[in-house]
Amino acid sequence: MGLKGSAAGGGLSQCIPLTQYSLGLTGDINAVSNAHNLAMVALTSRMQHERNYDDAKLEKLSGMKRLHIDPTSVRMGWVMDFCCQALRNIIIGIESDGKSNDGFMMRSHFEIAVASEVMAILSVARDLRDLRTRMGRIVLAYDRQGKAVTTADLEVDGAMTAWLVEAVKPSMIQTIEGQPVFVHAGPFANIALGQSSIIADRLGLGLSEYHVTESGFGVDIGYEKFWNLKCRYSGLVPDAAVIVATVRALKSHGGAPVPVPGRPLPEAYSRENVGLVEAGCANLLHHIQTVRLSGVPPVVCINAFATDSPDEIRVIRRICESAGARVALSTHWEHGGDGALELADAVKEACEEPNTFAPLYSWLSPLKERIEQIATKVYGASGVAYSPRALQHLHDLQKRSDASTLGVCMVKTQYSLSDNPALKGAPQDWHLHVRDVLFYGGAGLVAPVAGDITLMPGTGSRPAFRGIDVDVETGQVSGLF
Amino acid sequence: MGLKGSAAGGGLSQCIPLTQYSLGLTGDINAVSNAHNLAMVALTSRMQHERNYDDAKLEKLSGMKRLHIDPTSVRMGWVMDFCCQALRNIIIGIESDGKSNDGFMMRSHFEIAVASEVMAILSVARDLRDLRTRMGRIVLAYDRQGKAVTTADLEVDGAMTAWLVEAVKPSMIQTIEGQPVFVHAGPFANIALGQSSIIADRLGLGLSEYHVTESGFGVDIGYEKFWNLKCRYSGLVPDAAVIVATVRALKSHGGAPVPVPGRPLPEAYSRENVGLVEAGCANLLHHIQTVRLSGVPPVVCINAFATDSPDEIRVIRRICESAGARVALSTHWEHGGDGALELADAVKEACEEPNTFAPLYSWLSPLKERIEQIATKVYGASGVAYSPRALQHLHDLQKRSDASTLGVCMVKTQYSLSDNPALKGAPQDWHLHVRDVLFYGGAGLVAPVAGDITLMPGTGSRPAFRGIDVDVETGQVSGLF
Amino acid sequence: MGLKGSAAGGGLSQCIPLTQYSLGLTGDINAVSNAHNLAMVALTSRMQHERNYDDAKLEKLSGMKRLHIDPTSVRMGWVMDFCCQALRNIIIGIESDGKSNDGFMMRSHFEIAVASEVMAILSVARDLRDLRTRMGRIVLAYDRQGKAVTTADLEVDGAMTAWLVEAVKPSMIQTIEGQPVFVHAGPFANIALGQSSIIADRLGLGLSEYHVTESGFGVDIGYEKFWNLKCRYSGLVPDAAVIVATVRALKSHGGAPVPVPGRPLPEAYSRENVGLVEAGCANLLHHIQTVRLSGVPPVVCINAFATDSPDEIRVIRRICESAGARVALSTHWEHGGDGALELADAVKEACEEPNTFAPLYSWLSPLKERIEQIATKVYGASGVAYSPRALQHLHDLQKRSDASTLGVCMVKTQYSLSDNPALKGAPQDWHLHVRDVLFYGGAGLVAPVAGDITLMPGTGSRPAFRGIDVDVETGQVSGLF
Amino acid sequence: MGLKGSAAGGGLSQCIPLTQYSLGLTGDINAVSNAHNLAMVALTSRMQHERNYDDAKLEKLSGMKRLHIDPTSVRMGWVMDFCCQALRNIIIGIESDGKSNDGFMMRSHFEIAVASEVMAILSVARDLRDLRTRMGRIVLAYDRQGKAVTTADLEVDGAMTAWLVEAVKPSMIQTIEGQPVFVHAGPFANIALGQSSIIADRLGLGLSEYHVTESGFGVDIGYEKFWNLKCRYSGLVPDAAVIVATVRALKSHGGAPVPVPGRPLPEAYSRENVGLVEAGCANLLHHIQTVRLSGVPPVVCINAFATDSPDEIRVIRRICESAGARVALSTHWEHGGDGALELADAVKEACEEPNTFAPLYSWLSPLKERIEQIATKVYGASGVAYSPRALQHLHDLQKRSDASTLGVCMVKTQYSLSDNPALKGAPQDWHLHVRDVLFYGGAGLVAPVAGDITLMPGTGSRPAFRGIDVDVETGQVSGLF
Repeated sequence: MGLKGSAAGGGLSQCIPLTQYSLGLTGDINAVSNAHNLAMVALTSRMQHERNYDDAKLEKLSGMKRLHIDPTSVRMGWVMDFCCQALRNIIIGIESDGKSNDGFMMRSHFEIAVASEVMAILSVARDLRDLRTRMGRIVLAYDRQGKAVTTADLEVDGAMTAWLVEAVKPSMIQTIEGQPVFVHAGPFANIALGQSSIIADRLGLGLSEYHVTESGFGVDIGYEKFWNLKCRYSGLVPDAAVIVATVRALKSHGGAPVPVPGRPLPEAYSRENVGLVEAGCANLLHHIQTVRLSGVPPVVCINAFATDSPDEIRVIRRICESAGARVALSTHWEHGGDGALELADAVKEACEEPNTFAPLYSWLSPLKERIEQIATKVYGASGVAYSPRALQHLHDLQKRSDASTLGVCMVKTQYSLSDNPALKGAPQDWHLHVRDVLFYGGAGLVAPVAGDITLMPGTGSRPAFRGIDVDVETGQVSGLF
Repeated sequence: MGLKGSAAGGGLSQCIPLTQYSLGLTGDINAVSNAHNLAMVALTSRMQHERNYDDAKLEKLSGMKRLHIDPTSVRMGWVMDFCCQALRNIIIGIESDGKSNDGFMMRSHFEIAVASEVMAILSVARDLRDLRTRMGRIVLAYDRQGKAVTTADLEVDGAMTAWLVEAVKPSMIQTIEGQPVFVHAGPFANIALGQSSIIADRLGLGLSEYHVTESGFGVDIGYEKFWNLKCRYSGLVPDAAVIVATVRALKSHGGAPVPVPGRPLPEAYSRENVGLVEAGCANLLHHIQTVRLSGVPPVVCINAFATDSPDEIRVIRRICESAGARVALSTHWEHGGDGALELADAVKEACEEPNTFAPLYSWLSPLKERIEQIATKVYGASGVAYSPRALQHLHDLQKRSDASTLGVCMVKTQYSLSDNPALKGAPQDWHLHVRDVLFYGGAGLVAPVAGDITLMPGTGSRPAFRGIDVDVETGQVSGLF
Repeated sequence: MGLKGSAAGGGLSQCIPLTQYSLGLTGDINAVSNAHNLAMVALTSRMQHERNYDDAKLEKLSGMKRLHIDPTSVRMGWVMDFCCQALRNIIIGIESDGKSNDGFMMRSHFEIAVASEVMAILSVARDLRDLRTRMGRIVLAYDRQGKAVTTADLEVDGAMTAWLVEAVKPSMIQTIEGQPVFVHAGPFANIALGQSSIIADRLGLGLSEYHVTESGFGVDIGYEKFWNLKCRYSGLVPDAAVIVATVRALKSHGGAPVPVPGRPLPEAYSRENVGLVEAGCANLLHHIQTVRLSGVPPVVCINAFATDSPDEIRVIRRICESAGARVALSTHWEHGGDGALELADAVKEACEEPNTFAPLYSWLSPLKERIEQIATKVYGASGVAYSPRALQHLHDLQKRSDASTLGVCMVKTQYSLSDNPALKGAPQDWHLHVRDVLFYGGAGLVAPVAGDITLMPGTGSRPAFRGIDVDVETGQVSGLF
Repeated sequence: MGLKGSAAGGGLSQCIPLTQYSLGLTGDINAVSNAHNLAMVALTSRMQHERNYDDAKLEKLSGMKRLHIDPTSVRMGWVMDFCCQALRNIIIGIESDGKSNDGFMMRSHFEIAVASEVMAILSVARDLRDLRTRMGRIVLAYDRQGKAVTTADLEVDGAMTAWLVEAVKPSMIQTIEGQPVFVHAGPFANIALGQSSIIADRLGLGLSEYHVTESGFGVDIGYEKFWNLKCRYSGLVPDAAVIVATVRALKSHGGAPVPVPGRPLPEAYSRENVGLVEAGCANLLHHIQTVRLSGVPPVVCINAFATDSPDEIRVIRRICESAGARVALSTHWEHGGDGALELADAVKEACEEPNTFAPLYSWLSPLKERIEQIATKVYGASGVAYSPRALQHLHDLQKRSDASTLGVCMVKTQYSLSDNPALKGAPQDWHLHVRDVLFYGGAGLVAPVAGDITLMPGTGSRPAFRGIDVDVETGQVSGLF
């Protein structure tokens, strides 16, 4: 596979400007959205045609046998890459006066593009062949007998893949110091897989001695999925894991008032408060223990801010080191690459350590058991409570012959180890509430949805877009950061 | 302004592969869609916040005064670049059980991206500054007093423009013989402005002696808008107009059975039938007269097919020449550029002719009168019939102080000179039915919608996407043509 | 057939209190509503079962073959006996999370109960047998082949009739002077048949020498349907027709400002203004001419008010008598039965006149022609304009083998002779706009819907119910009048 | 208060025919439905007007200040007296093209009429004055500040009461042996209060020595509400409680296959099977213990069927008597009143016993505690699990200053002591799932909704209405039983 924007001659011929990085980036999200929505176009138009025509006419006109799609079983929605609560619950296919060609009326929904199964597939596919195969296994709905209706059944999987022939190639960008970075695939870790692509990792491993890959959010969310899902898909094994901590986040977990958008940052965050930091380290320790549980050495990176005090830094160091973790202060915000040398050394050292990396659970164990392992061992829950709907879905999925090849990909808030965003630190004595279970047949994932989290975030009352503008002389965009 | 993909050294550094040309092209449609949908995100989230909060809280949280948006007045919808009838009429913002943060419930709709007002603006803007200004004048809805609620009122116009800082630059591609072609802006002529961009035209005029620009579909649709809208916006004047005709289309207008997708082409189209061609020329003559009416010399280009017979070609030549039009047979499908030399000579000759190009109507005349001019003089209608809704909208728009600066941009089927796709040739004794009137404040257009045409086309029972696939070894896409 | 509330012994054993007269009356409207809505229960539950089960299971469970109901063809809605605009356009059958037993999702609507086809059937049925037969012919929807789906197909016609076994018997009430009055069936004349029942008429004709029956609203609406529909159904012929006029109504037609609910009555209505009355007589003359056109002698009853002046009364008398109509001043509001003696004499005289009663048109003529006869001869229109939807429905209905047995029952505002409530007097030079055509297979009616009229009226901002209350000691209801 | 259908002269002047008993009965359900729906008309039209007008215009037109109704907070729905799943979840107020007078768009729902709060009020009101007061306290929605919006706020409570001035009077019917019976109020015990009216009880107690009143379904549902709600409202104390048992029901609770509508009754129900009866007595014993817990003596009435065997009867007698209950075999189905003499004697004896009737819980205890008392002591649950939505509602209601005057009225399936209809006998080790909590401010009830029960039942695939018809000669209705 080629590399989009080839890196010959020590430089990049396609240097992606910062503007594009934020607004559409490499174009991959648009490609993913288009591929995803095309599947919905295929489904919804098919449902209209199946309703309008009898068997003979349907087959003559369409060249396909009736699929008997059960409209109450449609699981897949549409995607759009905005935080758009108004599209969370919609009704589509409402006919104009007595017309029968305005679709098939049913409930539907939009999710944010990064939650798309197509994005998850882009993230886990080993190559274009694998991606093409997975693209046909996406389940959109079920028929009247309960059989899955897939993208392959609708014969739309080829065209969906066509949208991705460029996106499947990782984009390389460079830092302001010239280090090469792959930007490839963007599923969020709270609502999706949360990993950059396996293709980019494999490319990176072939190009350099050390390859660092990012998993979204905390150890409970991003690293758990790296550990139990991505490494299973890729067959790769990490040498060490870096946990990034900030004084601010620890203060928040230690009980500082939650910042409210549009209001000034509470004073606790900008003035020294060693007590809050110390209290918040309960959360950090939980993450350290989880990394140790996976069998690799943890390195804590303290991502320095100008307002951090030496005593605040000290207390973090002390607590983490007591827990057996390496700690490095990183001042790259101020000193660039030089500021990260301490971290680099710590990581190098950690990579030398013996490694006992092993999955948290066997994929042969039932889905429910796997969910409970994650909830109790990674999140610190006392147990799991399921809604009747979630239980029914789990039950149906467990009966599939390929149940042991399906990964468990939790959907959970990133604001707490628990499923309640308000619970800070390391919550005790709580149950994880699983309200639904999604199924991604192409990505091979079963996704329990915990708490109130939604796959389509909302736009607040003081949205960032109001601050963005363009200089009409230079074309320069302001307000993105 | 720069040129995306600079053309230094006689070649193009960014040669857009054919795959991309069809699937996302230059990325402009994605940028337009994102800019457009962002406006809807701003509107719908604002409506939720205005509903949820009292005046004091609303202003404190959002920093904006209440806009009092009337939900029954929302005119703008969302866009998606697929033919998707299921999204033609939708209800959005349906709350989950008793939650108040799932948007504001209302009717809404999706249009195909090329019908977006943002695309129209991209087409008519003279430069980034003009585009930025227009981006703030888009009307999304009205308030309780009937005042327009614009993108500027929602403070989303800057961010919308930011999505377009790359798209505002024309993309250049080259033919297989190496001729440079600009591809820039893509509003369809039946449902939108139907012109490539003014920015690209101005660029082209600065780079060569002859500049050819395309207007979508027939003279009634594409050329009428070029004549009365685009030239007004650009201040440019054409030297000649080329009408492209095919034997097949003339046979269809002469009464040959209408081809049905998925069935073999009727024999009338592949066997010589001079009578059908001759009968169909009534349609072509109408187009020739319309071009003459605009004051420039018409050139008929017969776009040759392998199945055309010499007698069929002859009869077209004869009829067009009797009507005073130049005629050229073009065989570029077989001979490339050489095959188009006869056409090139005819166009050069026509450009030498004296020119009396003038608009069909004065913009000072009322909107209704302008619509009637187009209907009777360009379409050949006996008159115009309006729905009560259309009349009301026209009435409201006519009252605006800027009514004389607004262009009339018809929305009408391309399958007939009339608003009924089934009427071929040059229909007589019919009324144009205007069922609605749209308003595009940013583009400065009033758009009467005629007949049954919809701004969101539908996907048929044997859609093209079923034939598209990807070679997983080479990444080559098949089935696009 | 028995008589509900038998009239033996010169008195009524069931004297319906005034309260009930206004709130539910004889219970007939509830019975009609229940019968009507039961049909919709049958339809909607059937559609759910047909969706959920395959052929074998459907037939086993339900004992009925699949009806293949096309959900986009459902014409029938629900009824409720309130002015309730919120139920005008609804979506029903929205499933809860992934459940398949919450109905079939589709557009639907409520109409006011008096617009129900069941009420029309109650009005035109000759007896219980006729009613039972008609109850099975109501068309709810169409199947995929365009065949009507009726109440008989759903096997719900028997149970619907069961709801009506009491309602089919006329209720007799008495005036405060003891005169017997039948109250039976209540379709409004603007949106439905507008006649009291044929059963009550036949009963009344058997019990006394003179029988007076009411038709709703003006001659254009109520009498036109009495003339061309009810008399055809009943086979009865009237001897004379009374047109009731008030000074106030004539002033309104003469140009007095339209009264607005919640505001004081304009002064023009309470002070003498002979000019307004005279101008308004153009409307009254039109009604007189229409009655003459039907072949029976018209009697104008001036329904006196305290504010009428002698000169105002005089001008009405003069104009009507010039037009050859008898005129009688009736002061029953002040003098009871004695006040109506002049009217009684005029009616007696009129009944002696020779009678040439004949229908306006032949039922053998096409539906469109009949509509045009009514529009031009009764309403004074210049012609009729149809929406495409109305034309299509008319076309489909005309193709039925029983088209010549179907009556044309106009749906039109009662506020004007035209379809525009704002046009007073006798409007000239206007077209009747038919926007839809309804079909009532059980009543045997085709109902063109003109202008903006809706079959579900709305509740205004100062509704009458706010003034209604109950004396908790006596149970007396106040505020009804 | 008068008595509808006075009972002078030893007979009834208004003998309600059997037909009416089943189809509309005394008319009360229609009156209740109309009163209920009128409240919704008031609410929904008000919401439209508040949306359409600014403050000044709203107040001028309506004479009422803005109520600021939060559309996402509307709790009340509409009622219809049919099992109609299609109206369970609906969207109302969908505007036609750009019109603002078609209501206010929002989610809504229909419930079966017997679940109406108005029916509950009719059941608990002590007299017309009490009913009038309660009619104004019904909560339809909440405003933006969370304040309840009531029927009194909408000034619709008087008119609602007007609908009920006849319905508030009990109807008396007689058995075929001439015994007088009051039929008054009909809330179902599973989804509502389940009691006949207090007004009828008080009337009955004044007319005879013994008054028997019915509570719907089993002791867990009907009697629990009689005990803890109705007696609290009425201040009356029962002397004894009769539990009606059938051999068939006990067999079902003992494990016999569940009968399926439309299929033959399983053989277990028509052939002797003492074992099944004995097993099923676990359920009966639970009911006996619950009655004892309330402090009054239980009498078990075995409602005999032709298929019962002596041994089956014997085992019931034995088990119940061991539990200290009186048992009487009643053969009224065969012998009329004479067949019930054993039961009458047993009841008379029981009424002589000392009586320690006392409520299960104090109304001063928190709502949650009261729910848990009912769940554990009456249903035999191990505990209660609440949905987040239910918890939130309970929390809000508990904060009301009148919380200790509100009764807890459970909504739970009648098919099991638990909330799962499939669990027969006396289930152990289960939690009651409360998914929602409704509030009836006029009736003064808090109604936790348990399990999957819905307030709008559904119509099955072989509905009873298909068997109903009318003899057109006699008017006789067949198929009701």
